[in-house]
Amino acid sequence: MSGIADVARVAGVSKSTASRALSGSGYVSEDTRRRVADAAASLGYVPSTSAVSLATGRTRTVGVMMPTVTRWFFAEVLEGIQHSLLQHGLDLTLYTAGPDRASHDIVYRDFLSQRRFDGLIAVGLDPVDRDVDMMRSLERPVVTVASGDIAGVDVAIDDEYAVRRATEHLIDLGHRSIVFLGGPRAHWAHVDELRFRGYLRTMESAGLGAHAHHVTCPVTLPGGFEAAVDLLSYPEQRPTGIVAVCDEVAIGAIIAARRLGISVPAELSVIGIDDHEYAEMFSLTTLAQNPRQQGALAVDLLAQRIADPTIVGGVKPLRARLVSRHSTARVREG
Amino acid sequence: MSGIADVARVAGVSKSTASRALSGSGYVSEDTRRRVADAAASLGYVPSTSAVSLATGRTRTVGVMMPTVTRWFFAEVLEGIQHSLLQHGLDLTLYTAGPDRASHDIVYRDFLSQRRFDGLIAVGLDPVDRDVDMMRSLERPVVTVASGDIAGVDVAIDDEYAVRRATEHLIDLGHRSIVFLGGPRAHWAHVDELRFRGYLRTMESAGLGAHAHHVTCPVTLPGGFEAAVDLLSYPEQRPTGIVAVCDEVAIGAIIAARRLGISVPAELSVIGIDDHEYAEMFSLTTLAQNPRQQGALAVDLLAQRIADPTIVGGVKPLRARLVSRHSTARVREG
Repeated sequence: MSGIADVARVAGVSKSTASRALSGSGYVSEDTRRRVADAAASLGYVPSTSAVSLATGRTRTVGVMMPTVTRWFFAEVLEGIQHSLLQHGLDLTLYTAGPDRASHDIVYRDFLSQRRFDGLIAVGLDPVDRDVDMMRSLERPVVTVASGDIAGVDVAIDDEYAVRRATEHLIDLGHRSIVFLGGPRAHWAHVDELRFRGYLRTMESAGLGAHAHHVTCPVTLPGGFEAAVDLLSYPEQRPTGIVAVCDEVAIGAIIAARRLGISVPAELSVIGIDDHEYAEMFSLTTLAQNPRQQGALAVDLLAQRIADPTIVGGVKPLRARLVSRHSTARVREG
Repeated sequence: MSGIADVARVAGVSKSTASRALSGSGYVSEDTRRRVADAAASLGYVPSTSAVSLATGRTRTVGVMMPTVTRWFFAEVLEGIQHSLLQHGLDLTLYTAGPDRASHDIVYRDFLSQRRFDGLIAVGLDPVDRDVDMMRSLERPVVTVASGDIAGVDVAIDDEYAVRRATEHLIDLGHRSIVFLGGPRAHWAHVDELRFRGYLRTMESAGLGAHAHHVTCPVTLPGGFEAAVDLLSYPEQRPTGIVAVCDEVAIGAIIAARRLGISVPAELSVIGIDDHEYAEMFSLTTLAQNPRQQGALAVDLLAQRIADPTIVGGVKPLRARLVSRHSTARVREG
């Protein structure tokens, strides 16, 4: 590929003049600038971004940190971010750090501390891990998505609202024995904990506090399936309604019910939060959110903050929308 | 954060000496090098990678291109790559380009042409799109994963073997009416096409060519579900066995069968390729592959090629392994 020397030769100027013309730093006449630009275009010359970075202090790169890319929500947010960054002409550097502290430490010590980005997007990082505090100490703009802390987060749905709406939907249909399914108590993700607390408050407000019950399970489809097989196998402990921490767990519960010959919704109502790509095929009633849109909003916000670091304030919490399908129904009188 | 001037001051040397000592370029005494290193460590100083890149020509970054991150296979490969790059101290820059030509063009024109990486990993890119040819023109090492072209690909399972093994498994159990489910004919992914052709050849070798039948559908779980509902609704056209293009499609078919009251495996055998995270809960018999391992192998191979660009030759095609669960059984005599 062509170098700056080739561009200079074709344009008939010195290398340093060609460099000034292309970087936009230092004076060159308009005529020279045009000749150099034409030469660069005709040669397919692309400037070294390392040199541009040194000159401008900009990397044209955004770092994205999330715990995993294998769950629906994170993969969708990542696609939203990627699509939007392409429009902005910005590279995406991905950092995943699982629940173990050690992988976080490697990411911080060996990667983030080098600040090879103009800004960071942190998705689903728990406030308790202090990740976001560490990111902010890097003196680059940070935008947070879905960290389960409405006060400090930039882009997120209102989890408290979503789970209240889901729980009230079942209460309105006459259910009293409503289980909250999902999330291990031991290593709570903050979002899961928020949703559980919202469920609990809603049950208590409706005078159903004595019926509130948390069945823990990994926040995955197989996790929901296995926990629901356990929960539903004994008629005496079987609830009439399940509020699942998310759609993957809700769908696992529906599959479990079908395997056990329990009719959904005639004998069991199940409601989720997400509007996962499988929600339609399972006729799942859910509180819909749009993670791709959240990714795009995060990029817009970060681009603003990179342009002007004094900008503060995020997006107003997004409202999940009730999508009524056929996994919930009026409780059977008995 | 501290700059090179702070390091120089603490070490009691000039800025240029501190810079030489830290970059390892140019002479400094061992004593000075140690004082500068200690100063840098005590201040938590991290050198500007833009400057290091200019000096070394290395970006310490690997570009990864794949069509999507929302499918199981791609998300798993990406996690494998990420985990392995962290060990190597290399950044991961992600480029996703969907099936439309326009998004590929943007990625090449605006991103890849800038070569902000020491090497590239191309995952699941079709040879027909000529993506890999364009990548190779960038004069950086390229490693290809699962591009459906055993001759030219570096890391992949032997798709022909996997689908032959799957089809023979059903033939061995006495099935004759075996459908291949998945993959639209119009925009074949090369992997899907390879698998279909392998199925067809196996059927023909067994004298069952007249029974071969391809039911097209999107290569997703809901895609498999909908196509299978159609296929299985009419007893007269119902096969006794399904070879699915991948586990997501196979699981969709199992869910469809259950919805229609068709017993798996008593009335219908279903086999997939993958060993997806949901395979266990659906008791799916499948040809298992390990995409995380493929991601890690790709990183090892790329690291070798970056160190020595004359190295050629990839990994021997990986053998998928038959995992027998309970979605396949001897055909019912009727």
